[in-house]
Amino acid sequence: MLYVVGIGPGGLDMMTFEARRAIEESDVIVGYKTYTHLMKAIIGDKTVIKTGMCKEIERCTTALELAQEGKNVAIISSGDAGIYGMAGLILEMVTQQKWDVEVKVIPGMTASIAAGSVLGAPLMHDFCHISLSDLLTPWEVIEKRVKAAAEADFVVCFYNPRSRGRKGHLKRAFELMAPFTDPKTPVGIVKEAGRRKQEKWITTLAEMDFELVDMRTLVIVGNRSTYIENGLMVTPRGYQL
Amino acid sequence: MLYVVGIGPGGLDMMTFEARRAIEESDVIVGYKTYTHLMKAIIGDKTVIKTGMCKEIERCTTALELAQEGKNVAIISSGDAGIYGMAGLILEMVTQQKWDVEVKVIPGMTASIAAGSVLGAPLMHDFCHISLSDLLTPWEVIEKRVKAAAEADFVVCFYNPRSRGRKGHLKRAFELMAPFTDPKTPVGIVKEAGRRKQEKWITTLAEMDFELVDMRTLVIVGNRSTYIENGLMVTPRGYQL
Repeated sequence: MLYVVGIGPGGLDMMTFEARRAIEESDVIVGYKTYTHLMKAIIGDKTVIKTGMCKEIERCTTALELAQEGKNVAIISSGDAGIYGMAGLILEMVTQQKWDVEVKVIPGMTASIAAGSVLGAPLMHDFCHISLSDLLTPWEVIEKRVKAAAEADFVVCFYNPRSRGRKGHLKRAFELMAPFTDPKTPVGIVKEAGRRKQEKWITTLAEMDFELVDMRTLVIVGNRSTYIENGLMVTPRGYQL
Repeated sequence: MLYVVGIGPGGLDMMTFEARRAIEESDVIVGYKTYTHLMKAIIGDKTVIKTGMCKEIERCTTALELAQEGKNVAIISSGDAGIYGMAGLILEMVTQQKWDVEVKVIPGMTASIAAGSVLGAPLMHDFCHISLSDLLTPWEVIEKRVKAAAEADFVVCFYNPRSRGRKGHLKRAFELMAPFTDPKTPVGIVKEAGRRKQEKWITTLAEMDFELVDMRTLVIVGNRSTYIENGLMVTPRGYQL
């Protein structure tokens, strides 16, 4: 059996019972080293196969091989395995190559939800997820989605907002949103949501400090109704109080 | 203390440890009766205040009053409390009215993530959430978002897709998407995701049977790359296999 496990943001508190059980019941744990480190209290002395970043195909092949040999394997992703995680690649390989492996996807809490709860309630109305990484997606497609989301007044959650290789992507995204959004639109920034070193900032599109943002950060831009009050970012659902 | 708790889809397996602990540590549990029923194994013999549907403001006022009296209160939502749940209304009331209550939002697994894991990996690329309920949102706003999402090739998760009062909304949404989407675009339908009575269907835009859908159903429409294979719905992330 191959469990594709979303471990949530990283702290044990935001894991599901099912995710924890899948790791406990596995013989081998496969994952990016940051995530296997976060789970070490649960993994104990099980066999751990750690891989570096950008080794996704290698990691999935290893997990499938071990499961095909009869081992119970958990391949772990932070957040939800089905949102920019390992579930897609595993199922692509299983549906397109000849693997004799039973796969179970175990969902987890994605970063937007964890970050939303830290900021207040910014996701109370229609929202979208956009990854600003153009490693696997043409930048024109990303630009089109950013503009469409702003024009249709979605709350927007930016994943992979900024890395050493793409320092300007988030700033460019904000420029694309500008024709449709008020400069005072609230922006919530959460670094390492749900982990011990968690930090948060609430600001506006106009006052954004891009230096706060790195790859471990989730950025949420409000819609036209989102407001900041008492240090909370709230998107009203529409109730008349 | 007032905990605003997302209990996840309803089964105990998909709850987080933090959500369970918040309920266990509370003196009083407030919630829509379906949700308090789902949690009865954890609630035990605590005081439970059940309310019916569409009694959201009443429910939040009761929870705030009890917390202000000094009780530990958990107000529960299915899925994530911050996504079409109770976190928004509680924080709106706390930021706009005079309540002397400490509030902690405890995130939960929203229906799209649970449904995605059941269908395969449909949410592996940028996606959005759109609620088709026009009780609190003008229908024109919803239409604009549906069209924008289809044109920009987001995967779309429809919440509140169909009720007795709005039987035609999902069909209308599919018509709005038609100019931008292939009729063969995969559609995943999950009823009661993560609960014992869970059911799922995978079909296409052209072959959709709207009679399968009710308010307990989550509908996911794929993007231009999403495919169906071996009974799984997969949206590729873009890796070259």
